[in-house]
Order: sequence, then structure tokens, then C-alpha cells
Amino acid sequence: MCRWLAYSGSPILLEELLYKPEHSLIDQSLHSRLGVETTNGDGFGVGWYGPDTGTPAVFHSIEPAWNDRNLREVAGHVQSPLFLAHIRASTGTAVQQTNCHPFRHGRWLWVHNGLVRDFHLIKRELALAVDESLYPQMEGSTDSEMLFYLALTFGLEDDPPAAVERMVGHVEEVGHRHGTEHPIQMTIGTTDGSSVWAFRYSSEGKSRSLYYSTDLRSVREMYPERPRLQEASDETRIIVSEPIVDLPGAWNEVRESSYGVVRDGEDELHEFRPLR
Amino acid sequence: MCRWLAYSGSPILLEELLYKPEHSLIDQSLHSRLGVETTNGDGFGVGWYGPDTGTPAVFHSIEPAWNDRNLREVAGHVQSPLFLAHIRASTGTAVQQTNCHPFRHGRWLWVHNGLVRDFHLIKRELALAVDESLYPQMEGSTDSEMLFYLALTFGLEDDPPAAVERMVGHVEEVGHRHGTEHPIQMTIGTTDGSSVWAFRYSSEGKSRSLYYSTDLRSVREMYPERPRLQEASDETRIIVSEPIVDLPGAWNEVRESSYGVVRDGEDELHEFRPLR
Amino acid sequence: MCRWLAYSGSPILLEELLYKPEHSLIDQSLHSRLGVETTNGDGFGVGWYGPDTGTPAVFHSIEPAWNDRNLREVAGHVQSPLFLAHIRASTGTAVQQTNCHPFRHGRWLWVHNGLVRDFHLIKRELALAVDESLYPQMEGSTDSEMLFYLALTFGLEDDPPAAVERMVGHVEEVGHRHGTEHPIQMTIGTTDGSSVWAFRYSSEGKSRSLYYSTDLRSVREMYPERPRLQEASDETRIIVSEPIVDLPGAWNEVRESSYGVVRDGEDELHEFRPLR
Amino acid sequence: MCRWLAYSGSPILLEELLYKPEHSLIDQSLHSRLGVETTNGDGFGVGWYGPDTGTPAVFHSIEPAWNDRNLREVAGHVQSPLFLAHIRASTGTAVQQTNCHPFRHGRWLWVHNGLVRDFHLIKRELALAVDESLYPQMEGSTDSEMLFYLALTFGLEDDPPAAVERMVGHVEEVGHRHGTEHPIQMTIGTTDGSSVWAFRYSSEGKSRSLYYSTDLRSVREMYPERPRLQEASDETRIIVSEPIVDLPGAWNEVRESSYGVVRDGEDELHEFRPLR
Repeated sequence: MCRWLAYSGSPILLEELLYKPEHSLIDQSLHSRLGVETTNGDGFGVGWYGPDTGTPAVFHSIEPAWNDRNLREVAGHVQSPLFLAHIRASTGTAVQQTNCHPFRHGRWLWVHNGLVRDFHLIKRELALAVDESLYPQMEGSTDSEMLFYLALTFGLEDDPPAAVERMVGHVEEVGHRHGTEHPIQMTIGTTDGSSVWAFRYSSEGKSRSLYYSTDLRSVREMYPERPRLQEASDETRIIVSEPIVDLPGAWNEVRESSYGVVRDGEDELHEFRPLR
Repeated sequence: MCRWLAYSGSPILLEELLYKPEHSLIDQSLHSRLGVETTNGDGFGVGWYGPDTGTPAVFHSIEPAWNDRNLREVAGHVQSPLFLAHIRASTGTAVQQTNCHPFRHGRWLWVHNGLVRDFHLIKRELALAVDESLYPQMEGSTDSEMLFYLALTFGLEDDPPAAVERMVGHVEEVGHRHGTEHPIQMTIGTTDGSSVWAFRYSSEGKSRSLYYSTDLRSVREMYPERPRLQEASDETRIIVSEPIVDLPGAWNEVRESSYGVVRDGEDELHEFRPLR
Repeated sequence: MCRWLAYSGSPILLEELLYKPEHSLIDQSLHSRLGVETTNGDGFGVGWYGPDTGTPAVFHSIEPAWNDRNLREVAGHVQSPLFLAHIRASTGTAVQQTNCHPFRHGRWLWVHNGLVRDFHLIKRELALAVDESLYPQMEGSTDSEMLFYLALTFGLEDDPPAAVERMVGHVEEVGHRHGTEHPIQMTIGTTDGSSVWAFRYSSEGKSRSLYYSTDLRSVREMYPERPRLQEASDETRIIVSEPIVDLPGAWNEVRESSYGVVRDGEDELHEFRPLR
Repeated sequence: MCRWLAYSGSPILLEELLYKPEHSLIDQSLHSRLGVETTNGDGFGVGWYGPDTGTPAVFHSIEPAWNDRNLREVAGHVQSPLFLAHIRASTGTAVQQTNCHPFRHGRWLWVHNGLVRDFHLIKRELALAVDESLYPQMEGSTDSEMLFYLALTFGLEDDPPAAVERMVGHVEEVGHRHGTEHPIQMTIGTTDGSSVWAFRYSSEGKSRSLYYSTDLRSVREMYPERPRLQEASDETRIIVSEPIVDLPGAWNEVRESSYGVVRDGEDELHEFRPLR
């Protein structure tokens, strides 16, 4: 049911994280170890910020990530200081580019792993809550895109944590009213090109896996023999659905019902509480 | 802006109409003569009824029709007594299978040539008018699919002409309220597997082209030297956005603001009046 | 590294074997149990014979089989008395329709599971052995297609077993000359629309799995409570890379280095010996 | 039958040439004015050199260029000092990524507009002339890729003009021997990342159109009011199948049977003579 990855740090080739690690995201597309499905072959996407352009680029493909030659080319030639990547395992909605993550709105990107339960029962009611001017911009048919547009409606661009808490509160309220016990299951990554927010929450309190990388200075001390760790910048942060290399001490699980912010200066971790 | 074709008669290979005529639908995908665009390369679809199965099959492709090898294979091996085919020229919405015609609901198929003007302005309001149980079944993002689900909401399965008249009346009412002078432009073909309805209408009274074939007995008398005409069944009816062969006398233009019904017994032609 | 299936019997909907069995070929595309890879997501193909047309239809797709909506439509609406289906796990060559099985030449279809080892070393020399008039008909880049055209060159249309034995003998001779210890690994299915030949062989004597169904009268006696078994015709034969239902006694492994023929009258099983 | 473009100059976003000019390459994919076909919708490709990486990136797509969202994203976010782009109109060979230009070998890129006549008659003999180590690297089925590998065999990496002259001489010799009067029709662009070579030749002496841009200092003086001309670097050179903007004096036709070289310092134009 999807895996994703966010990188923030000094500019690197996308392939450094997408292909080269032993358990890279592309490897996870065939052999996920912690996901609900081992195969994530229902499309792929990567969104990256460049040095010059205001809005991020988005590359979406309906081919399995392990097959996509264009992805390999782009990943081997594009450098970026901040990117989100996502591999999809569809829960039934069509495999089409408009259903591939990351979704984009202006400078914002959004990836989701999880689902809205009984989505068909409440899709219309959720859609009605989307801001009128945003409604026609939804192009796909996934629950994930709907969550993004609800979060935008609830103020994502101004206060991301509050907007996501309101969005989840609304989905749970509507779901409960339609008799769904645990309406939402999610890890979410979103960014405006400078900060990255990562959320882990589910109505049942058993959320999909999510990890963030340890401060790189500490990891380097643990693994002085690893040259690539020595080259990476101090501010490097990686958030992943599951670890991309087996380095004990390098990965920390995001706690249940919490979220983190990666930005210049101090990182933050907070409790996540749906708002109604 | 799209071209389509409907066939009703004795079972024939799809390729008899899709490929073999000098100005076949596949030829029109590259060289339309009467369409707004000469190229209709933004996807393709064909829906056909078989002898045994209740619901029609639907084949959708995002490749240009002139390229699609699978279409050629299917067209060369599948026989059907009733089928609809459509080539698409997108007016901006994504090229994806869920945006390819014909759209299907139960036993019903639907193709559309034209557009809802300023669709982004009224998409949400139109969506709200769709029946609650139908809303989550919309998978794509086109105006054409929306028109289908509105027609279904207004009773397409019970009284197709009345439902389409109500649908158009509603779209015009909403469009006018948002300041659009001529909200809708359309030719529409729809069928339940026994009858075929074909509509030609536009708010401005200058609708896309639409033709129906003359009674085959008369055409045979006009062209006794054409062997394929001799083989076709008496009840054969073809409805097309533009003629697929140059046979003077064989094609009749559907009048502005009118619709026709093809079914066992007498064909009918009626005036079309949007209902408000 | 691919899985395939051949059906011969009274006409059935393709979906009866492709989708409905608990461990259908489509299920195997995600969860193969006996294959080298659990995922066979690098394209798909099915070739079928109809009642009227001389040459079989071929449907090829580069999407994973589990995703392909057109395949589901075709499988649910097309009946055939004889068809071959194949799901692909690429060993490196491009994922494109011209690399999808079954390959077709005139009335003949061909599927392959396995590989030619060090193919890049001997591809040119093998290609030179292909008949001059056949050479330009090769469209893809796989070892599997090359084996087909070599077999055609060596007389597949006249004496299939002898042609395949000569083909394998040639590949082994060329491979050994280039220092490859075990040049070929294969199960192969091929048909002219009336008989089906199935081969199991590998230079190392450890071939990919291959099974054929037991005489249906015996299976019915074993499982009198299974309605679908009662409906199938007596002559029904299924050949599969791995069983599609768990019915002890219903499947027999094709022995190492042997081949079988399915045709009207008696089935045959013979030893397979590469010819040099 | 294809259109292409080569850019050399200071780094620019790909979209500056692919999308923004009034008669850009993407516009030509729907509305070519000088090509044999107005529609070039059978795939697309762009290859670009970056600042850091040794080999160029290649992006290939089988969708029409005018549709491809990923192309628009890449073109809007990737800067390059040297790139080749190509839109394809197939003359029959499959529409697949391995048949999309530019073809790549090491640091070299290659685009072709035209055809080898009666290619199926001489494909095998041409293939036999390809160097043994290069043969297995051919992945597609086009005449264009074959010409590239023949040119590589004849020394493209050492002396491009001589290698292309030998390649053409060979193709003509083989073609004539098989009874083809005018075996080759071509414009070709090729580059190693520093120089660009552009060839215009056909056996019949009526070659596809090809233009190169006038020295930019002169064009600026002709059109002082055009801001984008003022920004471009002095060394900017554009080679195109047909002009992308209507600026009298800005484009020069490459003469029949000649080739040009774009590199630091002086550009060169020479006569082209097939070598036997």
C-alpha cells in the first residue's frame, strides 16, 4: 500500500537514494519488507525542487518503478536539495498518472501511504468540503489526492500541522457518521520546498511504518568507514516508509500519532491530535 | 474535438468499420475532414456487445488509434452486432484510460463529441447534482463523463431522450448563471445494447457534424456494384461524426437540435428541446 | 522469469483460466510460488484462436497483468477453444510489446519461460542462423523470440519436435563454443491452432517447472462436487508453468528433458534430445 | 517522417526551444509544415548533456509529444548547453521506446529523419556489417538505429564525417545490389557533447528539409526588439528540420549533399560524398 521517501540536504543526484542503497525505494517496489504488500508496482512518482524554478518538477509514471528507463535517466542526471518519491500499490483505483504521488499544488508536494476506509461511501461528502476554487483542480480519483485538497482547504499553506489535524478530524467525523470504525490510516509527507512535514497516524492506532534518519554527525561517528556518509552534508535528513540501508542506530521510528518537521535549525517532533 | 461511430446490424468484425472504409474512424484519427481538429490522437475507445454477456466489453487506450496494435488485433477478431467507437482530441483534461469513451454504466454505453464551456467554473456544481450513489463511480475528469452521470441521474435508463433533455437543460441553466453564453456543444451516442440514441445539439445552434446511414435497401439499389453493401443486413444502421465512405445518397445529416433512435422496427427522428 | 499457460478444449471465456482459479495466471503475476521470481510484472500477452479467422489474435501489454483493465475486458468477453497466455519477468531486455509473448508467425504461437545464458555473446551468431526471409520479421530483442525464429528456420511448421530439438542443439553448440557451460534453460509452448506442443529442457538438467492436467474424466471422479469440472469438455487439456488450483491428482509434472503433444485422439509424451 | 532539433550554446531550459517558440518542435508534432506528414505523433525523445555527468541523459516516450506531461515537466526544469530532440512519425516499425531517437552510445547521440528504402530486403545484410561487439547493443527495429550502429562501426567516434560517408556508401551499395534505385533519404544530427554534426543527403538528391541558425550577432541586429534574442549567448547555434520561428534572415537551408559542424571557434560547411 505504497512506500515513500523524502530527502532534504545538500543537492544530490536522485539516484543516490532511489537506486543505489541496498534497500532503495526502487528495490522496495519489488521487495518491500515492512509494507502491507511486497510489490509496489502500480505506478511511481518523484517531485523535486531545483535551484532556480519556483515550482517543483513532478515526474509520474504508470509503469512499475523497477522498469522505468526514463526514471533511471532522470534520477541519474538531476540533482536536488529536496525531493519526495513514492511507489504505489493501488487499493483499487485506476493506475494512471493523475493518481500517482506526489500531488502538487503551487510550491507544495504531498505523498500518502495508507487509505481512507469505505472511501466510496464518503467520497462525495469529502469532496463537498473541498474549497470551491480547488475542487476543479483535483484530477485523479484517489483518497490520497482528496486528503491533500482537504488539507489545502483547511489551511495547509499557512499552518501545515493544524491543517492536517483538521483534515483528519473531518475525515474521522464523516467516516464515523457513516459507520466506519477506523476511517483513516496514513503516513503523509508534505513540503513547500523549504521545510518537510511528516505525519504518522491512524484511527486504530496501528499506523504504517515511518522512519527518520539520525543526525548525520552521529551516524558518521558510528560508521567512519562509509565514504558516502562522509560526503553528505550535516543537515541531511531522510524520512522513509522503511529504512533504505541496514545501519543500526541510523534510523528512528516516528512514534504513533505524531509528526516531525525538518527545516533549517532544529528539527521538531510533536504529538498529532485530530481536530474536530 | 473527437469523432465517433455507432453500428447496429448483423454481427460484423469491428475492423469492417474501424479500419477498412477509405475514410474509416482510424483514418479520421489522423485526417479528420469535418472535425475541429484534423488530429484525434489523444486516446481511443470501443465498446461492444457480444452474444452471451450481459454487459458490453470496453477497450480503452491512451495511444493514438492509428498506432494501437491491440486495437487492430481485437478489431480483426471480435464480431459484434452493436458497437460504439470513439477517437479523442483532448481539450485539456488528462490523456488517461478513465477519460476515454465510451463510458459504461451497467448495460449502457455513452460517447460524446463537444464540450461544456467553462467547465472548471461549474464542475463542482454539476458534480453535486449527480446522484449520491453514482458520484463515486465517476473515475475520470472529463466533462463528457459528467454529462453521462448527470443523464443517468435524470433517468437515462428509463427515458433516454427526456433524461438527456433534462441534463442539457440543467447544464445550460448552471452555465448561464455563471455567465457562460453558450454552455454546451454536443453530439452524443448512447445505447443499452438494443436501441441506439443519437443527439445533436449546441447552445449556439451550430453543432458538431453528425450523420446517419440511409436505409440499406435504398443504398444497395444506388450502388449495385459494391459487394460489401450486398452482404450487410437490411437493418444495418451506422451513425457517424463524419461519413466513412464517399457514397452520395448514403448519408444524411442529423438536423440541428434533434435526435434519432435506431431500434427494431421503425427508426425515429425527433426534435430536441432542453428541459428546465 | 515468466509463467505461461496453454488451454485446449471446448470454447471458454479466457477469464475462466486467467482470472477465476484461486492461483490463476493473473494471481501468479503477483504471487508466483514455483517461479524464480515471485513477481512477473514486466508485461503480459495472450494469443487466441477464434472460430472463423485463420490467424490467432494476439494481445500484448507492457503493464503488469494484474493492472490491465483491457485484459480483464477481453478475457471476460472473448471465448476460445485454444489459447496461450504468458506473464513476463524480464531478465534485462526492454519492457515493450514486441518483447511480449506469445510471439506469432502465420498460424503459429510461441511462449517461452527461461533464458539463453550469455545471450549478448551469441546473439549475433544465432541471428545469422535465422532464415534470410524470416530475419526482418523479428521485431523485439529477446532470446525467446530468437528461439522461435530459429525453430521456424529449422522446420517448426513441418515437424515441431525435430525443429525444437535442432534449435536447442544449435544454441548449445554455439553457447559451448563461446564458453557457456549451460547455454539454455526453457519450457516452451507452441501451437498451430490444432495441436499444442510443450517442451521442458535445460542444459543443466534442472528445468523450470511445467505441468499438464490429468484426463478430465478421472479428475471429475476424484472431485464430483466441483461444478466447473463437470461442465468442461472431456478433451480439455491445460498446460501450466505451475498449477492454477490445488487439486491433488489433477496435475502431472512434465518430466525433465521431455515433451508432450496435445491433439485430437491420444496425447503423447516423448523424450527430448537436442540434435546437432 | 520525423522532425528534429539540435541546440548548442549557453545553458537554457529545454522548454525554451521545445515549447515556447510559435512553431516549436512540440507544435510541429501536431502541425509540421515542411515534413512529409503533418502529424509526428509516434513517440518522442530528447537527449541532453549536463554540467557534471559524462554521458547524456535520454528521455524517450511513446506518447505523442504534445500530450506528454513528463516531457513538459522535464523541459521546464532541466537546463542544458547541448541537446537533441526528435519527434517521430513511424514508417511502420513499432512505436516503442527503443525505437525513439535520439539513440545513444557512450557519449554519442544520434537523430535521423528519413528512411532506408526497402529496409526489410537489406536489414539482415546491413546488420551483418555492424561490428560484432556492437551488434547486441541494438535494441530496437528501426533503420535509423541501424544507420547509427553502422556509422559507429565505420569510425564515427574518430572521424564523424568520414564514418557517415562510408555508412551511406555502404547502404547505397547494398541497396543498389538489391535493386533499389534510391536507397537512402536522410538528415542526421549527431554529437559527442562538444561538437554537433548535421548531415543532409539523399540518393535521389531531394533531401528532407534542414536549417541552421544565422550567427546570433547578426540576428540581433536584424531584430533588436526581441528580448530573448538579446539574452542568448553569441555562440548559440540551432539546427532544425524546419524553422521554429518566422524570422526572415535567421535561418539558412543546409545545401543538398552537404554537412555542417558546430563547435567552438568557426563553424564549417562541407560537401557530403558517400564513400564506397
